[in-house]
Amino acid sequence: MRYARARMADGRIGYGIVDGDGLIIIDRPPYEDYAETGERWKLSDVSLMSPVDFSKAVCIGLNYRDHAEEFGLPIPEAPVVFMKPSTCQLGHEGTIIYPDMCHRLDYEAELAVVIGKECHMVSQEDASSYILGLTSANDVTARDLQPKNGQWTVAKCFDTFLPLGPYIVTGEDGSDLMITSRVNGETRQMSRTSNLIFSIPYLVSYLSHVMTLLPGDVISTGTPGGISGMQKGDIVEIEIERLGVLRNTIG
Amino acid sequence: MRYARARMADGRIGYGIVDGDGLIIIDRPPYEDYAETGERWKLSDVSLMSPVDFSKAVCIGLNYRDHAEEFGLPIPEAPVVFMKPSTCQLGHEGTIIYPDMCHRLDYEAELAVVIGKECHMVSQEDASSYILGLTSANDVTARDLQPKNGQWTVAKCFDTFLPLGPYIVTGEDGSDLMITSRVNGETRQMSRTSNLIFSIPYLVSYLSHVMTLLPGDVISTGTPGGISGMQKGDIVEIEIERLGVLRNTIG
Repeated sequence: MRYARARMADGRIGYGIVDGDGLIIIDRPPYEDYAETGERWKLSDVSLMSPVDFSKAVCIGLNYRDHAEEFGLPIPEAPVVFMKPSTCQLGHEGTIIYPDMCHRLDYEAELAVVIGKECHMVSQEDASSYILGLTSANDVTARDLQPKNGQWTVAKCFDTFLPLGPYIVTGEDGSDLMITSRVNGETRQMSRTSNLIFSIPYLVSYLSHVMTLLPGDVISTGTPGGISGMQKGDIVEIEIERLGVLRNTIG
Repeated sequence: MRYARARMADGRIGYGIVDGDGLIIIDRPPYEDYAETGERWKLSDVSLMSPVDFSKAVCIGLNYRDHAEEFGLPIPEAPVVFMKPSTCQLGHEGTIIYPDMCHRLDYEAELAVVIGKECHMVSQEDASSYILGLTSANDVTARDLQPKNGQWTVAKCFDTFLPLGPYIVTGEDGSDLMITSRVNGETRQMSRTSNLIFSIPYLVSYLSHVMTLLPGDVISTGTPGGISGMQKGDIVEIEIERLGVLRNTIG
């Protein structure tokens, strides 16, 4: 199943189930006990938004061996965790705003997990039952504002710095998917999620022992090697096998 | 004016205006165009909650000269920024949960600002018109989990790690208020907000150039020197002149 969130042609915002070239609108978020409203839109007549209006996105740094090596940093012994607020949300085909105070803006292709049920102190074994689905994420980063030995919040939290989507895809196993990023059609990152240092079940369990994860919350699992900069006007695509292509423009 | 958020004796949650020993319930959050509902509760018959249900709390580290010196760190040239999610919320008289994985749990007395209007790229001069009011915060920290050269998210973001309150107080100037913390009645921190390295108008303006601040969002402005640990059963109080006493138990 694929869930989307969209602004419909009449301006209302709703969640829906993707069905061919259409979107079947549902009456509440897909992590709640929803019903179809009977309304159906053509996908070409809606603007996709972040597929979930999350309360928090918990992001993992240096979670692929090659990316840690790229930074000359040791393989972390515990997950490196930072957060992005709801104001970072952006959907498929939205414009990533290049901040005035930034002079090096990077893409980071990431597999993201969307939480389906409130989750506190769950085991790795039980983690999968708290996951609604998977989506592609671009952990956009103002690299020149990211201190090596300091807090990453400013570098990571400008508005539009977390494109997600196009859809939340359910029923897929995220443990070994091809993950790719492209800028203007040129491949920049290519790896497999089997290279994650900390796996999805590990991260859900670990994070749930720190903070309660709420329905709709996002865990973005980190990026492989191959980061580099983007310019205004560039088109950046994140493609994860079986999840589709998340495409954004830099503006 | 003093605003509170409370669970009423019948279980409903609402915002209200503090009036003597009573709470006059209003029909929406105080940063919206509210009206009184006509309902009034005795303060002794309600449980105070976090005075605002924020989407993000943006917290500033090392923002008092003495606290930076206490850590042996240089005075920062730009604000050190980290975030706490909504699941950190706790109100006056609530219990701070001592996490199993933590072995040194610290209080940090802080003056917090509550945003009243959506705020993006505002100047220092205009900052005050975006502020609803002030409140006391306790930036609770799992000190042993806070790396000197790494991300602070895990150390800062356990559930209940941001007691706020008791009230949002409007119309006060936050630039020179006495700020104190006490554990079991013994004073541990005492300073004045005039010792802030980055002032409230500077922080509102700076952060609003990074991320849109939403109504109800919280900026916690950093803590003075004098941090130390707490034990289960301890009572911790944060007192800021003209804002009242925020009291919590460690459990």
